[in-house]
Amino acid sequence: MIIGFIGFGKVSQNLMNLIKSHDITFISSFEGRSQKTIEKIKESKVDVLDTFKEVAIASDILISANSPKNALEVAKDYGKYAKGIYLDLNNISPNTTFEISKYVPNLVDGAIIGKIDSDNPILYLSGKSADKLMFLNEFIDVRKISDNIGDAAILKLLRSTYTKTLSALLIESSQIASEYNLEEEFFDVLSLTEGDEFREKSLSRINNTLNNSKRKCEELEEIISYFDSSDLTMVKAALKKLNQ
Amino acid sequence: MIIGFIGFGKVSQNLMNLIKSHDITFISSFEGRSQKTIEKIKESKVDVLDTFKEVAIASDILISANSPKNALEVAKDYGKYAKGIYLDLNNISPNTTFEISKYVPNLVDGAIIGKIDSDNPILYLSGKSADKLMFLNEFIDVRKISDNIGDAAILKLLRSTYTKTLSALLIESSQIASEYNLEEEFFDVLSLTEGDEFREKSLSRINNTLNNSKRKCEELEEIISYFDSSDLTMVKAALKKLNQ
Repeated sequence: MIIGFIGFGKVSQNLMNLIKSHDITFISSFEGRSQKTIEKIKESKVDVLDTFKEVAIASDILISANSPKNALEVAKDYGKYAKGIYLDLNNISPNTTFEISKYVPNLVDGAIIGKIDSDNPILYLSGKSADKLMFLNEFIDVRKISDNIGDAAILKLLRSTYTKTLSALLIESSQIASEYNLEEEFFDVLSLTEGDEFREKSLSRINNTLNNSKRKCEELEEIISYFDSSDLTMVKAALKKLNQ
Repeated sequence: MIIGFIGFGKVSQNLMNLIKSHDITFISSFEGRSQKTIEKIKESKVDVLDTFKEVAIASDILISANSPKNALEVAKDYGKYAKGIYLDLNNISPNTTFEISKYVPNLVDGAIIGKIDSDNPILYLSGKSADKLMFLNEFIDVRKISDNIGDAAILKLLRSTYTKTLSALLIESSQIASEYNLEEEFFDVLSLTEGDEFREKSLSRINNTLNNSKRKCEELEEIISYFDSSDLTMVKAALKKLNQ
């Protein structure tokens, strides 16, 4: 079996490290890549073809793991050559996934949850052809959501809906606690029900959100725009809170 | 040492069970009590005096554990007789605590966190005289917050600010997930970062909130009214969400 990579960042590299099998050959290309990526590819056990078109044609599974803004272009350029499965692992919105599906016959929509460079990331898949990827369970925890393209991307957005709104709540409630000089006790008292790691985890979420508030707001706007037929009272409040 | 109880419900009974010492005598009274409470007192190892006035006078520590709406009246009636410490364990707002402090010279403001009938409830205390109660650490986890009367009540309100707003967030995000037929996966995916009990705990919070939404709204209104000088974007959204 041949697995081809378009994009050779962390996701591709770590997937390759996790999928340890003598029956699988990995391929990619230097075409248009930066010197740094070329070095990474050279250091790895990847077979190098001249072009990504050749990679797409030769692969049983073609994995697209690029930056979100390149995902659609890559799909348009190479999706049509993929005779096997085209697995999109880019961190893209459901709408981009739907757009991609127009150009890619055998699309599988994937979301990696948890740190990809940890030992146990989980790969959620959706799309009819996902069944054919379940053999990867031998190497990585793979869970098929449904036959519907887009469900993996929607699941990522739902996760994000919760975690980003939660961060806004943590910011607000810890702010009030600190106004009353009870911030320590606030985390202390909640650790009793929310778990021992509550303080550490919450402070990390608060700092991460405050330090990246512009991006977090954009992501909340994307959530609001995608789920616009749902009630979004809490999510909209989170956006307002972070915009302050 | 003599510990007196005004109110003989779960809190008083379980405190008595936790405080196991030959050096401590417990006292209370049948005065004005229901037949059921009289039976409870008879079954316990409490010494019975004729009136609560006598209980107040005789106690080194007088514990008021009644219904929130009686707390102020009890303090007005018996606080002046308490020569030792008056420990208020009623689930009352900070403003009621401040009002009570006008009638009670040696007030300590207490909040029990965790189930009182579990083996390890935690007793948060505030007020100068709280130091004199730290010996109770032999029997129950006691933590002094500060010398400021009201801090224990404010801490309860801060805890409630977080948990009630979180419930509104859980309701909203799980609703969206279920609209997309991804509710199972939503809880599944969040369990990875929020802990194995996330699903069970969240469903219990959602049900508890939806089944008691009127009371939850009243409690949120109380929070909003007490913390009205703070930014309450998220809390106000939670009230709006639960009022729908």
